[in-house]
Amino acid sequence: MAARFLRKISGVAVVGGALGLGWCVGASDIGKSGVLADLMPVKVFAATLQGSVLKTEVQDDIPLPAPNAPRIAQIMRFGFPSLANVRSLDDFVVGYDTRNRVPYWVCEHLTKESIAKNPNVERAKCDFHEDASIHPYFRSENSDYKGSGFDRGHMAAAGNHRLTQEICHQTFLLSNMAPQVGRGFNRDKWNDLEQYCRKKVFDSANVYVCTGPLFIPKREEDGKLYVRYQVLGQNHVAVPTHFFKVMVTETNAGELELESFLLPNVAIDDATPLSTFYVPTEVIERASGLLMFNKINRSKFAKINGQKVGWF
Amino acid sequence: MAARFLRKISGVAVVGGALGLGWCVGASDIGKSGVLADLMPVKVFAATLQGSVLKTEVQDDIPLPAPNAPRIAQIMRFGFPSLANVRSLDDFVVGYDTRNRVPYWVCEHLTKESIAKNPNVERAKCDFHEDASIHPYFRSENSDYKGSGFDRGHMAAAGNHRLTQEICHQTFLLSNMAPQVGRGFNRDKWNDLEQYCRKKVFDSANVYVCTGPLFIPKREEDGKLYVRYQVLGQNHVAVPTHFFKVMVTETNAGELELESFLLPNVAIDDATPLSTFYVPTEVIERASGLLMFNKINRSKFAKINGQKVGWF
Repeated sequence: MAARFLRKISGVAVVGGALGLGWCVGASDIGKSGVLADLMPVKVFAATLQGSVLKTEVQDDIPLPAPNAPRIAQIMRFGFPSLANVRSLDDFVVGYDTRNRVPYWVCEHLTKESIAKNPNVERAKCDFHEDASIHPYFRSENSDYKGSGFDRGHMAAAGNHRLTQEICHQTFLLSNMAPQVGRGFNRDKWNDLEQYCRKKVFDSANVYVCTGPLFIPKREEDGKLYVRYQVLGQNHVAVPTHFFKVMVTETNAGELELESFLLPNVAIDDATPLSTFYVPTEVIERASGLLMFNKINRSKFAKINGQKVGWF
Repeated sequence: MAARFLRKISGVAVVGGALGLGWCVGASDIGKSGVLADLMPVKVFAATLQGSVLKTEVQDDIPLPAPNAPRIAQIMRFGFPSLANVRSLDDFVVGYDTRNRVPYWVCEHLTKESIAKNPNVERAKCDFHEDASIHPYFRSENSDYKGSGFDRGHMAAAGNHRLTQEICHQTFLLSNMAPQVGRGFNRDKWNDLEQYCRKKVFDSANVYVCTGPLFIPKREEDGKLYVRYQVLGQNHVAVPTHFFKVMVTETNAGELELESFLLPNVAIDDATPLSTFYVPTEVIERASGLLMFNKINRSKFAKINGQKVGWF
């Protein structure tokens, strides 16, 4: 029963074992390293699936903030992933990782109005720029990325923030960037995911997106797990092994849907469907040290990772 | 001139280059990997030495909090290293790294009275125990360490907190631990450093200590820098590559002294003097993403790493 639930909820192939023992997620496409089984401790995985995970601040009814509420209250309606180094921009919010010089997380609130194209806003006029609000020890600079072979990958996508030139320009802050593989990832599969988000916005009331980097361990030849990642430039900007995007969609009917994507920071075959990268949200929460939209009672979701909940 | 300054301030052998270019700290004993030169961007290193590093909240006079002030106000007198996941215990304060399941930092305030031996307190009665205040996803457990070959290394040393059995017991919270190499490190050189701190307390008015783990990159064969560390158990408790301890001593005459130690998490030869591990505080700040005692104007220190400041 638990195995069947798992198959449905995760949207990823699942290899079952004895009840409560040996569950693991088939991760052939995720990370290309079979890490998810390692990432998800057996006993808590089972507990999650039965809805018993402890969360604080859960609320049954979380009304939309008033239209004149501060933008940050609207963006963060369903909770902060963490309260470390929070920086609020005009149309997105960043939690910044001073050690790795990349975000911990970036949160967005997207509506048809907020993402509408403004013909006066030109992305080509935006430049990648340092974030002077970050202490100089912890800031990344363009020179860190230069010649590294990695793209400056947007966490809050530029295409989601076109209300004004200034709002668009803010997405080019280096505090909104993390090093991404360019061809096959940032410019391709990751871009597909960003477009998927925007498409959802057009037939929904509200979409909330939390995006960020991950540093996931891998089992090496000695049988032990190691985290290993490159750092770039004089400021040692960390190259994430993976990226996550967790979306909560409020449909026009007022139902909530949850989608959690985990992608390896590698060139990914164009033919790979995005649904391949669905994972239980808990996988992202454990790996990131963050809690996703944790004001929402998990039983409120009508759909999780594209599957209706509670139909079986 | 700058080269000479550097030699004095750091207390570590220094290899100079042209002025403002090519400075690096001789790191033969630190990390055994020559990482410090990589860790310390050239241009800011030079800036630091000339006292021009930007710090926020610097105050010229920071009075001792009243004796009846909350303990946390006393411990954190000279500033918080960061405000992420702060947990205040009866006699020490932790900033907890939910991603790595170890502290970011642990701060202590030590006086002759606070570290005095109490014959009624028995360390042997203390057990390592989980911190129930940490979300279950991010908690470390005894089982993570079991059979790993690593010690549960105290950040706030048990020997510094013997006022009551409860205070001593709190130092055995797993949120105060990080995996340390046992023989040659936790039980030897690291213990020497803890004893050095306690000795300072006996002929000083106040000693403030900030301790924590580091994850320092290393240049690999391809010429690139990589961070690599093992993770333990089901909760993926990160094994730090290094540890730091930064101490501010207020002497009986009211002068402030700063000492910053950076030790690799490896067995260290007993004959190696502790002064080998002195580094400029900035090295620790950049590597950790934290700011150390940053309310203090750096020009107020009468001694840095055992050397009088301003004598040359």
